[in-house]
Amino acid sequence: MIWRMGSRFMSCKVYQGIPVSKGIGIGKVYKYSREKKIVNAATIASDNIEAELQRYCQAKERANKRLKEIRDRAAQELEAAETKIFDAHVHMLNDPVLDQEIKGLIINHKMNSEAAVNQAIDVVIEKFNRLENNFFRERIKDIQDVGNHLLSALNGENTSLHDLPAASIILADDLTPSETALLDKDKLGGFILSHGGETSHTAIMAKSLTIPAVVNIEGILEEVSQGDTIILDGIVGKIYLNPSVELLNKYRERLANYKKRQDDLLVLKDKAAVTIDGFKVQLAANIASEQELEKALEVNGDGIGLFRTEFLYMNNDDLKNEERQYNVYRKVLTAMAPKPVVVRALDIGGDKDLPYFDSPDEINPFLGWRGIRILLDRQDIFRSQLRALLRASTCGNLKIIFPMISSLEQLRKTKDLFAGVKSELELAGIAYNPNVETGIMIEVPATAVLAELFAAEVDFFSIGTNDLVQYTLAVDRNNSKIANLYSPYHPAVLKLIDQVARAAKRNGIGVEICGEAAADPLLTPVFLGMGIRVLSMNPGSILEIKRDVRRLKQHNAEEKAARVLEFKTEKEIEDYLKNS
Amino acid sequence: MIWRMGSRFMSCKVYQGIPVSKGIGIGKVYKYSREKKIVNAATIASDNIEAELQRYCQAKERANKRLKEIRDRAAQELEAAETKIFDAHVHMLNDPVLDQEIKGLIINHKMNSEAAVNQAIDVVIEKFNRLENNFFRERIKDIQDVGNHLLSALNGENTSLHDLPAASIILADDLTPSETALLDKDKLGGFILSHGGETSHTAIMAKSLTIPAVVNIEGILEEVSQGDTIILDGIVGKIYLNPSVELLNKYRERLANYKKRQDDLLVLKDKAAVTIDGFKVQLAANIASEQELEKALEVNGDGIGLFRTEFLYMNNDDLKNEERQYNVYRKVLTAMAPKPVVVRALDIGGDKDLPYFDSPDEINPFLGWRGIRILLDRQDIFRSQLRALLRASTCGNLKIIFPMISSLEQLRKTKDLFAGVKSELELAGIAYNPNVETGIMIEVPATAVLAELFAAEVDFFSIGTNDLVQYTLAVDRNNSKIANLYSPYHPAVLKLIDQVARAAKRNGIGVEICGEAAADPLLTPVFLGMGIRVLSMNPGSILEIKRDVRRLKQHNAEEKAARVLEFKTEKEIEDYLKNS
Repeated sequence: MIWRMGSRFMSCKVYQGIPVSKGIGIGKVYKYSREKKIVNAATIASDNIEAELQRYCQAKERANKRLKEIRDRAAQELEAAETKIFDAHVHMLNDPVLDQEIKGLIINHKMNSEAAVNQAIDVVIEKFNRLENNFFRERIKDIQDVGNHLLSALNGENTSLHDLPAASIILADDLTPSETALLDKDKLGGFILSHGGETSHTAIMAKSLTIPAVVNIEGILEEVSQGDTIILDGIVGKIYLNPSVELLNKYRERLANYKKRQDDLLVLKDKAAVTIDGFKVQLAANIASEQELEKALEVNGDGIGLFRTEFLYMNNDDLKNEERQYNVYRKVLTAMAPKPVVVRALDIGGDKDLPYFDSPDEINPFLGWRGIRILLDRQDIFRSQLRALLRASTCGNLKIIFPMISSLEQLRKTKDLFAGVKSELELAGIAYNPNVETGIMIEVPATAVLAELFAAEVDFFSIGTNDLVQYTLAVDRNNSKIANLYSPYHPAVLKLIDQVARAAKRNGIGVEICGEAAADPLLTPVFLGMGIRVLSMNPGSILEIKRDVRRLKQHNAEEKAARVLEFKTEKEIEDYLKNS
Repeated sequence: MIWRMGSRFMSCKVYQGIPVSKGIGIGKVYKYSREKKIVNAATIASDNIEAELQRYCQAKERANKRLKEIRDRAAQELEAAETKIFDAHVHMLNDPVLDQEIKGLIINHKMNSEAAVNQAIDVVIEKFNRLENNFFRERIKDIQDVGNHLLSALNGENTSLHDLPAASIILADDLTPSETALLDKDKLGGFILSHGGETSHTAIMAKSLTIPAVVNIEGILEEVSQGDTIILDGIVGKIYLNPSVELLNKYRERLANYKKRQDDLLVLKDKAAVTIDGFKVQLAANIASEQELEKALEVNGDGIGLFRTEFLYMNNDDLKNEERQYNVYRKVLTAMAPKPVVVRALDIGGDKDLPYFDSPDEINPFLGWRGIRILLDRQDIFRSQLRALLRASTCGNLKIIFPMISSLEQLRKTKDLFAGVKSELELAGIAYNPNVETGIMIEVPATAVLAELFAAEVDFFSIGTNDLVQYTLAVDRNNSKIANLYSPYHPAVLKLIDQVARAAKRNGIGVEICGEAAADPLLTPVFLGMGIRVLSMNPGSILEIKRDVRRLKQHNAEEKAARVLEFKTEKEIEDYLKNS
């Protein structure tokens, strides 16, 4: 792609991805891969065997040191349950069978250490692959990880994500929750992921930490080298590889301006989100772990509008680990009190799988076994989460929301189950707040269509625009082939949201918006005009939206909403919102 | 499973699948598999080599004869383009390289013919597998087919689908369109497919031909043997393997009753579908090929309400084969004239892939690139279909319907393209009917929500209940894990259908129902009560629904529809419809 700017030509490779966390990053690429390393295999001379064995042992020592460092760091940063995997890595590296295998290959087959490590690791993987047990299958990438640590140590390389050069721009296929947990956030200039969508863990974390991120750029891993200079434009989703000095300077200026604007917004931190004519709006934060609380507190959000609990279930034994759940909820509720914290019941399935949870292979997972559908089938998991939540409810202002409800039958079953858990606690003499509000996500079109009926049976609605748009338009937002069809400005989507808001109002219940659209400044006046008073978004957007709210008048917003609902196409709506 | 009946115990294995074509079948299993055959490999003595070579050559002769018979039969039954594959089979069998390979294995490695054929076929498959070219990949199952013919000939078996014992119940994973075309329909007692859903080609064909069929029974292929006796209950979706005499007799009686009821219905053939109080309803047929016309004519359907054109695109060169399309449309339009024929523009994607069409791998194909989304991206294909349709439009009463429309922008683009094709014909002096009506499928929730806007810009609506239910409830109907959530009785679905019917009425345009629900007798009064006057269904259901219509009064139907729209849950609705 050729860029013309001023009077000069500048040419550099440009990639287009999905921007998932705003901001600009300029820095060196830090490539991180769990893929198998390419190995320089060689045969060694017989009289070099002793030296090669020594070389291997030294590398193993270094790998050991490194893995133990990571484990210790994990122990500081993570919950006990999450650090187990790093313990396991150390154990795997020091497995005597593996050690003998590698040494045998060096001695008997005159392999160099790289080739020997490679082959020995392959043998273990092959063994695990043959086992029908899912647990061992899942461990394969850990073994590969350990192998890569050994190979890097032989190479004198650093493989760890945890001590990065400053302003590193991480380039990876995707990262696991534990990998992201180990990252030194201060050194991060941005994320580029070849895979993943807006709802992947890394994207959500990047947003919470306001680190710029662009995802879904196929092929970029192969084309970019370690240490390449990159401009990451997380506003429009563009990546510039080895840009010219001119482009770099231009982006440095943009970055400085962007930072300044963000700093300017900080003065709004302690002001209310209130329109010129005095209508108060709640701007709450979406978070996915207790670690992300900090950012919500930093911008002084009006509570947590969506606490996604999927990432509290990283390990198999979390599924029914009531204690662990309880501790996290207690911390978050206490930190936010007396502001509300809306916790969403475990919403797996769709595009959010737990690695160890035995999910069926589905042809259309978004139309499959997910959210409440799983929870009502697996009441053991559901009950332990509800118990943990109710026990923590005494620490603050808890509200619970149920995902993917599509019928009153489901809602009633859910409420019965909730009542059952309350009775259980009652009988056991365990304290809880009996008045915890419960609500449902409005994300299935059927539920939006029947909002009037649902409003009579719940305390509040939360409109999940991401899924609602997806189902209403029959468009998978992560499918690049039809991405242009995915739009929250579609008149059918806005009409349904308006109907839901009206149903809530008529029935005197609360209604909030918690999808990506909640942070879209073009839609802020529309939602306010529809009478929606709670918007929940990534913490990094709260101050910007607050600034906009403080410039609005409610009656203008109402006019705007009414006007928008008269348009026939999304283009008309988008144009109108951009130009009015 | 143990069945108690009268005073005796009867035990037999019972399978539950999805009933996709009503009726009862009793007969012997005819297993058809494209899977690799299990081979009795053996080593032969050196002095038997000559004899073994002869054995192989004789088997090859028999296989040749058989494959040529199939090809000739295909030439009678199918369009020229579809017979190519059977030509290719004959060529493959007589490929000299394959022949040399097999003979070499017998001579040099002392393999028996079975082992040699098996290994030689594997070598070819392996070669094709390594090629990146999709065309060769697709040919692998053909090579396996040819190999199976050879192995069967060695065994003295019959592998062909085309001369079946009478009352055969076909048991297969799924069948290709060309395989079903070769079936001797008179010998068919039913279909059992381990895979497939209600919308698979075999299911649709079975329905058109009123042959009972049950699909989606995992594992049944392995458990049932060639020649086992089976009762296939296509009404409830049950399969009884090797049933007791008592059960057989019971089902023979049921079958006789069922046939009698069907015969009784035949007297309605020439009567109108009109309510007691004189409201006329059109009961049209869904077809998927010109072959299926016959059944529609047999029951004297009120036209074709849905002509699915996917199966006219079986071969690569069909994509832009205007002549072939034209011929088919001309035949169907002429045969039905002056009754209307609603042809749906090519609706691939979702669960309907063409084997050679380079569809992207999609994580959620139902929310992906399908229907009009493909047609507007591949206007070459779309234009040639529209040209063929317009050219055929002089032969009868053609209407065209566009699938998966979800925005007015798409509709307008489609109409522009259609107008462009008309001008082209105009300029070329080719005759066509300038007044062909065009409509849209209402299957995406957004389109149902905005029906009022769409009604102003089209001639008619066709409500595709299968997809509409699926998207509105976010439930993949083919996903057994959540199949219980899929229901046309869901109040949101019926509310949307009612809204669409009202919008059509207000705008003075036509509206028909063409999904499975159109043939559901419980819903007939509901749809009539909503003012819908056209129902399009599999031909086998037309007379039954006609009988019901002739027993209804319009004002009762209206009361029923109004009542149904007041209920809050699908259970209440289903119970009410069953008991009223």
